[in-house]
Amino acid sequence: MDDVGWGDFGCYGGGAMAGAPTPNIDRLARDGLVLTSCYSEPSCTPSRASIMTGRLPMRHGLLIPPMYGMPGGLEGEVTLAQLLNDAGYATQAVGKWHMGENIESQPQNVGFDDFYGFLSVSDMYTEWRDPYFFPEVVYSEERSDWIRNEPFNKCFVHATKGEEAENVEEVTIPVLSTLDDKWAEYSTDFINRMAEGDQPWFLYHCTRGAHFDNYPHERFRGSSPAKHPYKDTIIELDDIVGRLTRALEESGQLEHTLVFISSDNGPEMETWPDAAYTPFRCAKGSTWEGGVRVPGIFSWPGTIEPGRVSDGIFAQLDLFATILGLAGVPDLIPDDRYIDAVDQTSFLVAPDGESNRKFHFYWLTSNFSAVRVGEYKYMLSSISDDERDVVNPGGFTGVMQQYPYGRLFNLYLDPKETHSYLIRKLVYIDLIQRAVGDHLRTFREYASRPPPTQPRQQG
Amino acid sequence: MDDVGWGDFGCYGGGAMAGAPTPNIDRLARDGLVLTSCYSEPSCTPSRASIMTGRLPMRHGLLIPPMYGMPGGLEGEVTLAQLLNDAGYATQAVGKWHMGENIESQPQNVGFDDFYGFLSVSDMYTEWRDPYFFPEVVYSEERSDWIRNEPFNKCFVHATKGEEAENVEEVTIPVLSTLDDKWAEYSTDFINRMAEGDQPWFLYHCTRGAHFDNYPHERFRGSSPAKHPYKDTIIELDDIVGRLTRALEESGQLEHTLVFISSDNGPEMETWPDAAYTPFRCAKGSTWEGGVRVPGIFSWPGTIEPGRVSDGIFAQLDLFATILGLAGVPDLIPDDRYIDAVDQTSFLVAPDGESNRKFHFYWLTSNFSAVRVGEYKYMLSSISDDERDVVNPGGFTGVMQQYPYGRLFNLYLDPKETHSYLIRKLVYIDLIQRAVGDHLRTFREYASRPPPTQPRQQG
Repeated sequence: MDDVGWGDFGCYGGGAMAGAPTPNIDRLARDGLVLTSCYSEPSCTPSRASIMTGRLPMRHGLLIPPMYGMPGGLEGEVTLAQLLNDAGYATQAVGKWHMGENIESQPQNVGFDDFYGFLSVSDMYTEWRDPYFFPEVVYSEERSDWIRNEPFNKCFVHATKGEEAENVEEVTIPVLSTLDDKWAEYSTDFINRMAEGDQPWFLYHCTRGAHFDNYPHERFRGSSPAKHPYKDTIIELDDIVGRLTRALEESGQLEHTLVFISSDNGPEMETWPDAAYTPFRCAKGSTWEGGVRVPGIFSWPGTIEPGRVSDGIFAQLDLFATILGLAGVPDLIPDDRYIDAVDQTSFLVAPDGESNRKFHFYWLTSNFSAVRVGEYKYMLSSISDDERDVVNPGGFTGVMQQYPYGRLFNLYLDPKETHSYLIRKLVYIDLIQRAVGDHLRTFREYASRPPPTQPRQQG
Repeated sequence: MDDVGWGDFGCYGGGAMAGAPTPNIDRLARDGLVLTSCYSEPSCTPSRASIMTGRLPMRHGLLIPPMYGMPGGLEGEVTLAQLLNDAGYATQAVGKWHMGENIESQPQNVGFDDFYGFLSVSDMYTEWRDPYFFPEVVYSEERSDWIRNEPFNKCFVHATKGEEAENVEEVTIPVLSTLDDKWAEYSTDFINRMAEGDQPWFLYHCTRGAHFDNYPHERFRGSSPAKHPYKDTIIELDDIVGRLTRALEESGQLEHTLVFISSDNGPEMETWPDAAYTPFRCAKGSTWEGGVRVPGIFSWPGTIEPGRVSDGIFAQLDLFATILGLAGVPDLIPDDRYIDAVDQTSFLVAPDGESNRKFHFYWLTSNFSAVRVGEYKYMLSSISDDERDVVNPGGFTGVMQQYPYGRLFNLYLDPKETHSYLIRKLVYIDLIQRAVGDHLRTFREYASRPPPTQPRQQG
């Protein structure tokens, strides 16, 4: 899901409290494993590309989301989809892509048999069409033409392996509001079709919601207790989880399928009230917990014990090694480049499985920001979130801060990161700094791709 | 429970995430009704006395917790315990009292058949004995004597209806660490004894934990993933919930018993790291949500439908009218004074029951602070929580702020109360101000008790 916060779902303390109950997601969570320390990268494209490559953004080079035709994409990376496809899996991508619009980076050319969705991100299709947000464009033919001619596809597309993508429909505001419904239908068909054959399959379903600007499907307008677009979209997304789960169940595949639900980053707070909820500090764009700690729900009835909740550290990019391990092809993991992913199979499937990840490294575009080990997070730099600087700073608007001595947060005692505990806990610092040093050395020892562009906010 | 935060339990998004899983409480929650908008008063004594009287602190007069022998107590009020006792209920209080140490306010004189616990609050018994917190007292015989002679009982006591309380044991630090265990044992015995007879009963069990300073029972030291005293105490409290629930179950009374678990206010943040967790703004002592929004779990298998979660507004003082209603004696509710409690029976027992409370009024000692209606909270005054003023302000340390135009928060879109929505939502203000006016008029039309003392921080 897109820009959904750690706190949005009922099973994370949101749901009814935050004005949008999520019964389908909560049921899946109850029947599976809820991760309380699941980490994305600070924004969309870096997170998604890290899942696809098992590598940190500083290695795959997608440091920020390419917006409005900016260059950058998966081209040249070895993807999870490609390796699964090589191993005989049917690979289907549906929904948001946003890992490059250039032909070589499009899903059908980086490992997917089929793709049905848009190549970029929700706001690019509609914000300049909405007179509330962009009157200066909507009411200027010249500026509207200028955006229409920007080098990105205004349509959502269908593409099959190796073929050129075909436009399905231009994404106007009314069309946008139907996308998640259409995409869920497409994925449901895929699930049902797969049930008829013997081929193993991989479905990468990425919703449009709940990225700003949310225009929920008319069936869901006003459907949440809060009645605001973001919250109605959460209701719609929960309904879609229900539809996909039912398709798995009714086609007899639920017990043979590992399901993972997550978000690509924390709440986008610059666009409040069209915004998610996290109990943690700051928001999308930052490496405070609010920016990168996301829901992480695994379900696999019969294999993952129901009712588990774990604070074990899980980086979304661990999916790369974990899925290839579960697929029985761990040997396909490339050995010509550095892979950050850790195989978390035992964490997921053992009844009391513990995380195999000791350290989690937080990067903010090209700046090393922090490391977590156990309940401790040691922070060397971050984005400020000071309301005295600008109103409603979110995670993209703040000032880059360096902490020359570091800051240390105990995330059990201080989930909101407001009390640096460093002076009292210096005994841990040598261990932590050695881990950071080892980590940074991997960038010298293994070549990384140069970033395709300079950091710029947003996405 | 004492000073436990909204976010501490797993079913509220804490548990494993916050370093202390709470499986027993979560199970009870799953089998019952979880309230996401359950409100206490900003501190201990006001909250407890409001439950006992069904009245706001400005009516019963206990505006702040009486500390170290300060005057003030339940004396003269009509209590829930007294009315239940009059109706034939066995009434048992166990654990923390803190609604007056003077004889007339002690539990055995305000409606309880029996009391086993201490008359005040945890920190008063031990903080001056601990050389870490009070070296200037511990290492001064003169000052130690001075505190020993302060007019409060240093022992925990046993008392029976109408009799003088008898000291059981002086509450030193080692004794304190055993209290919750002893009290749970006492309540378990009571539950088992009640199963043998036909008398209906009311057990008011108030834990010592997790009020600072926490010295968990030796069985629980280091028992939480976080291993800090507050977190180990949460593990201990969860275990006690398990013990009491088991006693109900094994004695065949679980399906005949309404269980309510809650806390008397939000986290006490001035004592961090010995502190609770709330995702909401500010802390105990304040009327920000962090100060007064508390866990609220009802369980009554066979009567309350399992798996319910509701954001309906519930004030803890509603227990007064609700319990008397459920006991079949609503006519015992006094009509010679203003009662703020609303009968919430239908909210609890109807499968899709909704709250019968339209408005919730927030008071900060003798200052009217805010009102909530639906998801909106209109705030006229509060305690500042600005770290630039003092470090680690908590809810007791801030500055009283008045908002001449008011502030309006949408608690669905903005659970953390950081975006005042007033200017956009002025259409609601007339309705809200009329409700506030009606509320304030009740204080002119019905006599209130004068507060026994001037507001002073802490408790």
